[in-house]
Amino acid sequence: MPKHRVVIVGGGFGGLQAALHLKDADVDVTIVDRRNFHLFQPLAYQVATGALATGEVAYPLRAIFRRQGNVSVMLAEAEGFDLTAKTVKLRTAAGAETLDYDTLVVGGGSKYNYFGHPEWQEHAAELKTLEGALHIRAQILHAFEQAEVASDPVERERLLTFVIVGAGPTGAEMAGQIAEIARDTRDEFRVVDTWQAKVLLVEAGDRVLAAFPKRLSAKAEKSLGSLGVTSLTNHMVTDIDAEGVTMKTDQGEEKVRAGTVIWAAGVLAASVATTLAEAAGAEQDKVGRLLVEPDLTVPGHPDVLAIGDMVQVAGGDPLPGVAPVAMQMGRYVARSIKSKLRGGTSGPFKYKDKGNLATLGRARAIAELPPGIRVSGFFAWALWLGIHLWYLVGFQNRLLVFIRWGFSFITHGRGTRLITGESNMP
Amino acid sequence: MPKHRVVIVGGGFGGLQAALHLKDADVDVTIVDRRNFHLFQPLAYQVATGALATGEVAYPLRAIFRRQGNVSVMLAEAEGFDLTAKTVKLRTAAGAETLDYDTLVVGGGSKYNYFGHPEWQEHAAELKTLEGALHIRAQILHAFEQAEVASDPVERERLLTFVIVGAGPTGAEMAGQIAEIARDTRDEFRVVDTWQAKVLLVEAGDRVLAAFPKRLSAKAEKSLGSLGVTSLTNHMVTDIDAEGVTMKTDQGEEKVRAGTVIWAAGVLAASVATTLAEAAGAEQDKVGRLLVEPDLTVPGHPDVLAIGDMVQVAGGDPLPGVAPVAMQMGRYVARSIKSKLRGGTSGPFKYKDKGNLATLGRARAIAELPPGIRVSGFFAWALWLGIHLWYLVGFQNRLLVFIRWGFSFITHGRGTRLITGESNMP
Repeated sequence: MPKHRVVIVGGGFGGLQAALHLKDADVDVTIVDRRNFHLFQPLAYQVATGALATGEVAYPLRAIFRRQGNVSVMLAEAEGFDLTAKTVKLRTAAGAETLDYDTLVVGGGSKYNYFGHPEWQEHAAELKTLEGALHIRAQILHAFEQAEVASDPVERERLLTFVIVGAGPTGAEMAGQIAEIARDTRDEFRVVDTWQAKVLLVEAGDRVLAAFPKRLSAKAEKSLGSLGVTSLTNHMVTDIDAEGVTMKTDQGEEKVRAGTVIWAAGVLAASVATTLAEAAGAEQDKVGRLLVEPDLTVPGHPDVLAIGDMVQVAGGDPLPGVAPVAMQMGRYVARSIKSKLRGGTSGPFKYKDKGNLATLGRARAIAELPPGIRVSGFFAWALWLGIHLWYLVGFQNRLLVFIRWGFSFITHGRGTRLITGESNMP
Repeated sequence: MPKHRVVIVGGGFGGLQAALHLKDADVDVTIVDRRNFHLFQPLAYQVATGALATGEVAYPLRAIFRRQGNVSVMLAEAEGFDLTAKTVKLRTAAGAETLDYDTLVVGGGSKYNYFGHPEWQEHAAELKTLEGALHIRAQILHAFEQAEVASDPVERERLLTFVIVGAGPTGAEMAGQIAEIARDTRDEFRVVDTWQAKVLLVEAGDRVLAAFPKRLSAKAEKSLGSLGVTSLTNHMVTDIDAEGVTMKTDQGEEKVRAGTVIWAAGVLAASVATTLAEAAGAEQDKVGRLLVEPDLTVPGHPDVLAIGDMVQVAGGDPLPGVAPVAMQMGRYVARSIKSKLRGGTSGPFKYKDKGNLATLGRARAIAELPPGIRVSGFFAWALWLGIHLWYLVGFQNRLLVFIRWGFSFITHGRGTRLITGESNMP
């Protein structure tokens, strides 16, 4: 009898956990991804600031499943679903292909939301991919290099102005790290004073890190301020062009000339959510998230499950688009498949909130642990460090990251400050 | 009194050593490079095979000279020289600029020689830059991914054929590493058998690693053979196209269909050698190398020195284009500048040959130490490891590389097998 075939689209946090937790199940798993690696997205910003190397935040999917014989990895893009014939249409290097499934799991993740202004994307770098992180790295480092040779002081000021749009964890962490680069590289430049760099964290809402309690937001803003980051809350971005950023405040419009703009504002569900919604006749919310049943199945299709930050449980509380949610969904889905194969059923998915952490640079962080425990400063940072190391895929990476962070902490150095890619020429 | 100004064009092995050894001199040094980092070229092939990360073989020039106050780093391209006015014409991010010098040192390195066939470059990847290494990494890994989904066995065979042109150290090392990847990743693919991969090392001469004594060449060829590399000596490449490589042998022409072709044949001096030769009215040899005086000055211009593999001492023995030659030239130039400032003179540059090493994969290497001592196998490999670690710039890198190599050695794993860049889509 042929084995039950599980196809997982997406090798992110959710898909990875689903496949890993099907290890002991009598199924054939195929994990499909456009990339040959799993990206540890929460640390991608550290690649963008030269603190970590790409191999420390990304790990080949094949290496992860090397010893898990029931998993095949396929480098392919899911282009369509036929939920009646139970097939996934794929595009591989060899052309179009069709993959049969008995159970389908889709976790396509999210992309940045430019709120109807796709033209901003050209001038605002984003962190969603590894290439995006390398591009930002090159852009930040190049800004300092350009400032070093600029003869016009106005132009130099523009080059040394960094605007980060969106004060969620990614934006706040980026801002803190850029301020640290400016501070730590002062000795390396002979003309420009990198301390003159302006790092502006622009947020439409009234506080930074709004997912945290007010008191921690205030602490974070103060902590960022001491690093040299100016938080511009209640500032709504109305335009981004090659010159800089225009913002609207209570006092009217304000334009800031900036050499580097980084976009870290809202997200939209990945386009595969729409592809799946159309195939299933399912609904999506305002940001494109597929509305799923409490057991994460797509309405009317008990053999199709959708997970991660491209889904929202219909009528349920909105869940944050963070790795722990996706990972718990992935594990839930694996359990649910196994129980169904044994003829059982599953209760609804329940997210267990283990807390919320954000780091703001060297030995600074804020944390909210579930039963109202709030911490900040070094202890929160140590906690952040421990948890991130723990979850990094692969022992080799974990150790290397630890050593690199250890060195960075002691020496204030950054090992990977290389300007590579298209931005390499002066 | 203004200080003596030394301008060094090129932050490679020669330029770096010259600047470092001017530490205690009463001079102002400006080191000009198109890139913001020094590349440890002899290990670039390890990036191409996923064994090392970019930050482990490249180090920011500013970080290297952070504490050497008499050195300024400038991200710029040297576009021309006026040896009468004593200026260098530069192109920086801010536009054209002119830099005055009292002593000029030029070490521009080399580029690959396609022997009059620039059209081959499109189909043959090369290792000269960090981007080149990442491109090769993506290409090799992608070839296996493509083979995994290929339905046509002929196409699969083509995808699993890797041709390396040129059996010098770079070519031999690349070939050995690709064969190792094929062997070590067998468990990760479910359809394709990576052991079926063909790795062909094509060489026009009659033996591999011809810079070594015949006995060691033979050992190397045998060692490569046991890894799965087929050495095709006396094979002259006559064409490279999208399909593969055509070679001429005693038996006539032979065409090999190959998915990946890597170019590691002869080199030409960098184009800055020609720019300098024209400005100085100096001669160049067949491969573009500038002919310099025994004291490495450009004929008729005692304040202009040229170093590294873009030069050849007129009438002297040809020197190999390796890092130790460039490094010794750099140090000689620093000494010579210091002695001139004190009113002294310098004897001719003498290359001290400390031996020749090549590694051929896991725990295999060959070495020729100066007084006719020849070693191969594990001992040669340990020697190679020690010497390369010793010379890697920066303590952080050295430790990380050691740990990564240690893990790779124990686990047969490769930490950085990421397909990034343009080649990321299936």
